[in-house]
Amino acid sequence: MSPQLQKYLREKRVQVDRTLDHVLPPEEQEPCVIHRSMRYSVLAGGKRLRPILVIAAYQVAGGSRDAILVPACGLELIHTYSLIHDDLPCMDDDDYRRGRPTNHKVFGEAMAVLAGDAMTALAFECLLTEDQEDCFPAGAQLRAARAVARAIGTVGLVGGQVMDISNDARDGRKETLEETCARKTGALIGTSLECGGLLAGADSSVLEALRRYGRGLGLGFQIIDDVLNVTGDPRQMGKAAHSDQARDMVTFASLLGVEGAREEAQRWIEDAKSALDFLGEVAWPLREIADYVLERES
Amino acid sequence: MSPQLQKYLREKRVQVDRTLDHVLPPEEQEPCVIHRSMRYSVLAGGKRLRPILVIAAYQVAGGSRDAILVPACGLELIHTYSLIHDDLPCMDDDDYRRGRPTNHKVFGEAMAVLAGDAMTALAFECLLTEDQEDCFPAGAQLRAARAVARAIGTVGLVGGQVMDISNDARDGRKETLEETCARKTGALIGTSLECGGLLAGADSSVLEALRRYGRGLGLGFQIIDDVLNVTGDPRQMGKAAHSDQARDMVTFASLLGVEGAREEAQRWIEDAKSALDFLGEVAWPLREIADYVLERES
Repeated sequence: MSPQLQKYLREKRVQVDRTLDHVLPPEEQEPCVIHRSMRYSVLAGGKRLRPILVIAAYQVAGGSRDAILVPACGLELIHTYSLIHDDLPCMDDDDYRRGRPTNHKVFGEAMAVLAGDAMTALAFECLLTEDQEDCFPAGAQLRAARAVARAIGTVGLVGGQVMDISNDARDGRKETLEETCARKTGALIGTSLECGGLLAGADSSVLEALRRYGRGLGLGFQIIDDVLNVTGDPRQMGKAAHSDQARDMVTFASLLGVEGAREEAQRWIEDAKSALDFLGEVAWPLREIADYVLERES
Repeated sequence: MSPQLQKYLREKRVQVDRTLDHVLPPEEQEPCVIHRSMRYSVLAGGKRLRPILVIAAYQVAGGSRDAILVPACGLELIHTYSLIHDDLPCMDDDDYRRGRPTNHKVFGEAMAVLAGDAMTALAFECLLTEDQEDCFPAGAQLRAARAVARAIGTVGLVGGQVMDISNDARDGRKETLEETCARKTGALIGTSLECGGLLAGADSSVLEALRRYGRGLGLGFQIIDDVLNVTGDPRQMGKAAHSDQARDMVTFASLLGVEGAREEAQRWIEDAKSALDFLGEVAWPLREIADYVLERES
């Protein structure tokens, strides 16, 4: 990772973390237990990839207001809700996440379900926030929230999780796996970029470029996730390695082999970057993020 | 119930049912199982109180477009999602709802969690629907969706369920019980009325009247629910009676006695109706709905 990107990501992560801390109700607010549960999972760290993509897309599309931070955090809240629900005993039954016991291990299943539900609500509050209405073009918040609502439903995030737990990919077709992953990971990453563009008032050619970049980045990201599940160091990843194998899941790594999967990821990342060609130098953070997604080790 | 209200409720229910059938993805759409699960619970019947309140408030506030139906259905989707999650084994662990096995009994816990999640997303799609953007005043959909997002978070629906499963009302104070119920039932009923007003472009005095009506109606509704849990006929209610007693829950019925609770409900319903006084004859459906909530037997 270039020192320039390292600085960029660190700065944005600090801003996102501060904003998340601000939008989440304090632990002392009644009913305390749900706020403790939400803060436990949201403030557990993490790369903050999705909100950073919102901010980067917003800036690439010409936006310059700090007001972007609150809607951007909406995407992180959605991401965290989906992790909490995916980790539940009735789903993937995971005990560790980001190096700590999963939400339901600490707060119980009921509170984990409810914390996820509350995060979705809070995410839409962030996207539709009143405080910063004047900072965005008319109708932009409406369109961004609409894009998120669509992306997290059965055509996107939830649909992908359904295909994942039904292990639809057992059919062994690369197309099915791509479809699952385009929904489960790609939809939210894609909509992060779209939200950034919409809130900057981007025109349709820029929005289309951001969507294509998002599609490639999302697939590249998930393929590398599969590879890291085979090759990764569990201490670095903060979650169990080899869990896909243990569950007999069909993944890009099992289907194409580790090397084949890496090559496939590289093709998607190249496609993502080429979508940005006409945007010139200003798009450097998105280009470098794409490279980083390919090279990451956790 | 007057024949006039009976006709009004029947007509609206038919419109709401038809719209729900239209906005829910068809069962044949992949991944089929989640769409079957969603349709199973949403199309199981029910009074459709919340969407009818949206429509009634919209009309009382001067709205006259059929475009109100899609956002109105958003409130029913939220209500159904909350029932599905509340019924989960880790929460109230209920086997029957609306006379049929609960969602997780038929589709399993994972699909029940995901169906609820997908319904929330679909609800926001309905509230923010693009098709009917020109039918509502500028910014009205944004404000309505924002009100819903707030009402279903920890200050409202989720917060009430947290207090409910924590059995906070064990402290035996009527205020705690009112607080729980204002969140768990009142928030969504109140926001239904507010959405109707907002989408009609109502001024602040009408919105305030609708909110006060909503608060009284919501409390009256929940108190009668508690009473029916003691006195009701399970065949008519489609769910187990006496479940509160079995769980040793503090309810309005256990705290005030059945008769005392009925009187308390009556006071709230009277307050709800008096909020509408200045609106005159046009508010008749809301007045009669309030009376019906008090007299209902299931």
